Amino acid sequence: MAFVRNAWYLGAYAREIVAGQLFPRTLLGDAVVFYRDDAGKIVALADLCPHRFASLHRGQLSGNDVECAYHGLRFGPSGECTFNPHGSGKIPATARVRTYPVEVKYDRVWIWMGDSELMDRSKLPKLDHFESPAMRTLDGLMKINAHYVLALDNLMDLSHTQFIHKEFLASDYLRGTLDVQDEGEGVLVSVWIPNGSAPPNFKLVMKNPDEPVDHWIETRWFSPATVTIDFGTTAVGAPRSEGIFSIGVHIVTPETESSSHYFYANSRSFALDDPTVDEQRRTFQERAFREQDGPIIENCFQNMGTGDLFSLQPVLLSSDAGAIRVRRRIESMVADEARAFAGTGVHA
Amino acid sequence: MAFVRNAWYLGAYAREIVAGQLFPRTLLGDAVVFYRDDAGKIVALADLCPHRFASLHRGQLSGNDVECAYHGLRFGPSGECTFNPHGSGKIPATARVRTYPVEVKYDRVWIWMGDSELMDRSKLPKLDHFESPAMRTLDGLMKINAHYVLALDNLMDLSHTQFIHKEFLASDYLRGTLDVQDEGEGVLVSVWIPNGSAPPNFKLVMKNPDEPVDHWIETRWFSPATVTIDFGTTAVGAPRSEGIFSIGVHIVTPETESSSHYFYANSRSFALDDPTVDEQRRTFQERAFREQDGPIIENCFQNMGTGDLFSLQPVLLSSDAGAIRVRRRIESMVADEARAFAGTGVHA
Amino acid sequence: MAFVRNAWYLGAYAREIVAGQLFPRTLLGDAVVFYRDDAGKIVALADLCPHRFASLHRGQLSGNDVECAYHGLRFGPSGECTFNPHGSGKIPATARVRTYPVEVKYDRVWIWMGDSELMDRSKLPKLDHFESPAMRTLDGLMKINAHYVLALDNLMDLSHTQFIHKEFLASDYLRGTLDVQDEGEGVLVSVWIPNGSAPPNFKLVMKNPDEPVDHWIETRWFSPATVTIDFGTTAVGAPRSEGIFSIGVHIVTPETESSSHYFYANSRSFALDDPTVDEQRRTFQERAFREQDGPIIENCFQNMGTGDLFSLQPVLLSSDAGAIRVRRRIESMVADEARAFAGTGVHA
Repeated sequence: MAFVRNAWYLGAYAREIVAGQLFPRTLLGDAVVFYRDDAGKIVALADLCPHRFASLHRGQLSGNDVECAYHGLRFGPSGECTFNPHGSGKIPATARVRTYPVEVKYDRVWIWMGDSELMDRSKLPKLDHFESPAMRTLDGLMKINAHYVLALDNLMDLSHTQFIHKEFLASDYLRGTLDVQDEGEGVLVSVWIPNGSAPPNFKLVMKNPDEPVDHWIETRWFSPATVTIDFGTTAVGAPRSEGIFSIGVHIVTPETESSSHYFYANSRSFALDDPTVDEQRRTFQERAFREQDGPIIENCFQNMGTGDLFSLQPVLLSSDAGAIRVRRRIESMVADEARAFAGTGVHA
Repeated sequence: MAFVRNAWYLGAYAREIVAGQLFPRTLLGDAVVFYRDDAGKIVALADLCPHRFASLHRGQLSGNDVECAYHGLRFGPSGECTFNPHGSGKIPATARVRTYPVEVKYDRVWIWMGDSELMDRSKLPKLDHFESPAMRTLDGLMKINAHYVLALDNLMDLSHTQFIHKEFLASDYLRGTLDVQDEGEGVLVSVWIPNGSAPPNFKLVMKNPDEPVDHWIETRWFSPATVTIDFGTTAVGAPRSEGIFSIGVHIVTPETESSSHYFYANSRSFALDDPTVDEQRRTFQERAFREQDGPIIENCFQNMGTGDLFSLQPVLLSSDAGAIRVRRRIESMVADEARAFAGTGVHA
Repeated sequence: MAFVRNAWYLGAYAREIVAGQLFPRTLLGDAVVFYRDDAGKIVALADLCPHRFASLHRGQLSGNDVECAYHGLRFGPSGECTFNPHGSGKIPATARVRTYPVEVKYDRVWIWMGDSELMDRSKLPKLDHFESPAMRTLDGLMKINAHYVLALDNLMDLSHTQFIHKEFLASDYLRGTLDVQDEGEGVLVSVWIPNGSAPPNFKLVMKNPDEPVDHWIETRWFSPATVTIDFGTTAVGAPRSEGIFSIGVHIVTPETESSSHYFYANSRSFALDDPTVDEQRRTFQERAFREQDGPIIENCFQNMGTGDLFSLQPVLLSSDAGAIRVRRRIESMVADEARAFAGTGVHA
């Protein structure tokens, strides 16, 4: 499966890109090097010197420029070669590297992997709860050796939580009502489980953990690879606003066709300053994402040998509706890009 | 080289399949999961959930069924999906996994890797000496990173024992008479070495180790991948029944085109209750099979890059006669299966 | 990129081939086994038994012959099978292995990898300084996981010394005059830097390290894969004969299309008996070749995915002139060999 290119992907946490250092990361198969210019603004260049094809991140910063470790060519934030230390010093016309538009939002670095001409800041994700003082966020990053769409599959069908994350998330999910619909350009999967048991990781912070609750889970996919999960409980019959909830944000950026950067975050509406709850939530992230989701997704991908689920004629269940809708949407976006590319003769 | 499919292969020692546990093993390129049902009967299913392609062995047993770890589908011993926890619970018509006929004989689990319709219990191997109180058996299992036919080559030409297993098996083998013939559906290679020195691992248990002996080695191949070696000595001129002997059984089940499960056993007619002799024989198995046969077979396979010896135009020697006959027999069986498949349009 | 075959390659240091031992090394994709015959003369055979394709080096020497570990066939220095221990002992007509012409010169083993008929001793490299009592030589060997031509690129453009080897070799190189020309069948790159600072690893042995010097670097490529570097300084305006210099010899023998044996040596004209200087020079070799050249060459090769630079449309600089000339020369030699082969129908 090809990738949607004309889109913002999460490239890194802003904190990963440290002044004075070159930070390499492969995204959608492209080797990219990030760094901060003198003003602290983040730059993203193709991580490949066009002379002898050394990786630029092996070199060093020289002011606003990257100097190649091997023969000293320098490239600036615009991708132009700014200095050739050899011979007359004339800079060959072709001496330039690709640049990628970059925006920092929510302390995260978003990178436009397609045609710069089509770059559209209005398409940056809206995740304002990250900035809300009423939420406490813990985040992290893991590598998954699988096509990124398998991680989206995993998120769009949270019935899996009742099996592989049972210890944290067992509830009456499976007798809830499932609703899948488009929501703007995104896809929303809603599960509503009235009058059931609370999931174990919510019981930890409840006064009466054995009391039944109304429980909701709203999973939203935003193109290309962001999934938010609004996950909450309230007293039976009470309004949601009286309950407690968390918002999970899962952003999965393809590294290659067979590996992904999985950025996860969880923001909670309760016990904001309680380090014990921090530790509970950290444990949840470590176990649920790294030890449970990661391995099962990798196992499926290894068995499939492709990201293209439909080619394998899978048995599909009602719980797959959200994931299928997302896959179809991505397929259609990829096809649109291929058509547009064929029409213009211009490569992203 | 394709595999003969309509045949019994040794899948596991029965002791490897423990009640309450899922036991995965790849056989002939197929991922298989073994388990015991409530009555202790061994079941073999394709180790792949047809929903999202997780490996079933990552799940758990639920009575007689396997429950997939990822989304909880259950499959019973017949391969049918028995439970769908999602939505209405309706079971999709295609929700089933392949089953493999299994028989336990000689404490070993035999699995029919081809068309179940053609399964034939009369073709199970006959190795009754395993049950004889007059024999003492030691067995084991090793992995070889080579096409299984190279392991058969190795066994059908035991002249190699005079070179790589010299320390255990040096004798006057090379001046013996070699005879190769069909025996039923099998192939028999007989070597008869009258009035020669006994091999070192027999001298260990002889009263007069330096006395000459008559020595025989009878190697039998049974389709598809079982080789027995009747290996004995007797006083010069005495009947074989007065001598001592061992029966080696080597069963090599393909894992993939480039790796094999090598099950070995050695049953001896002498010193049945002597732990010192047990230790000598164990040392022999560890050294001769794991440190000598395994590495040289892997070396040849790596150099060949294929299991198809004849395509490499090898120099052939008189000692290759048995191995060549076995290879030709296997090639012909594979061709027969391909023809039968083409004729019926039914895949095994 | 194919390899030039009708040429002498450096196969090993003579000291690597020890009497009584079989020494395997892959050269230009061919598995070769070296050994010494009874008279100490070095023999090179294809490291592959034509019977079952075991590697001959796993066997043992039997007088002047190699005995295969697996079934005991023996092959002599001419490549003929000399002994078949099986059956009648008749030696099959095809039982022979390829031999490679070998010459020992400068305590190094040179091997002709092409058509033996075309073998030409007059083409052995001339590196007589190795035998000069006025020079002190330190040598070594490393493996590089890259096509060998990338190592030649590295050597033919020593401007890289000003970047990755700055700590040892920083000088006024980049303001020197560069001259590239054919010299016999070789290529000479000369750099002349008058009245500049001496490189750090020469300053170590200078009485007045901060005094300016005239500095020369003459890099010579000899087909197919030998590069010498005459590297010296003298007082400003003084004749070169009054200065000090070293001669580096870098010989890069392809192992495969993606790995190389890099033999390096450095002979100095100064401080011949000074162990401190020995240690300084050893440190230089360890750091500059193993930790600096090796990794950057491997990085470029990994990014390129091929040895064929031109296919990637690189940006080329004035400093590339020598490397380009060598690449063109090698391409033309390879093309000549392909033409000759097509003409004669005889394979090298």
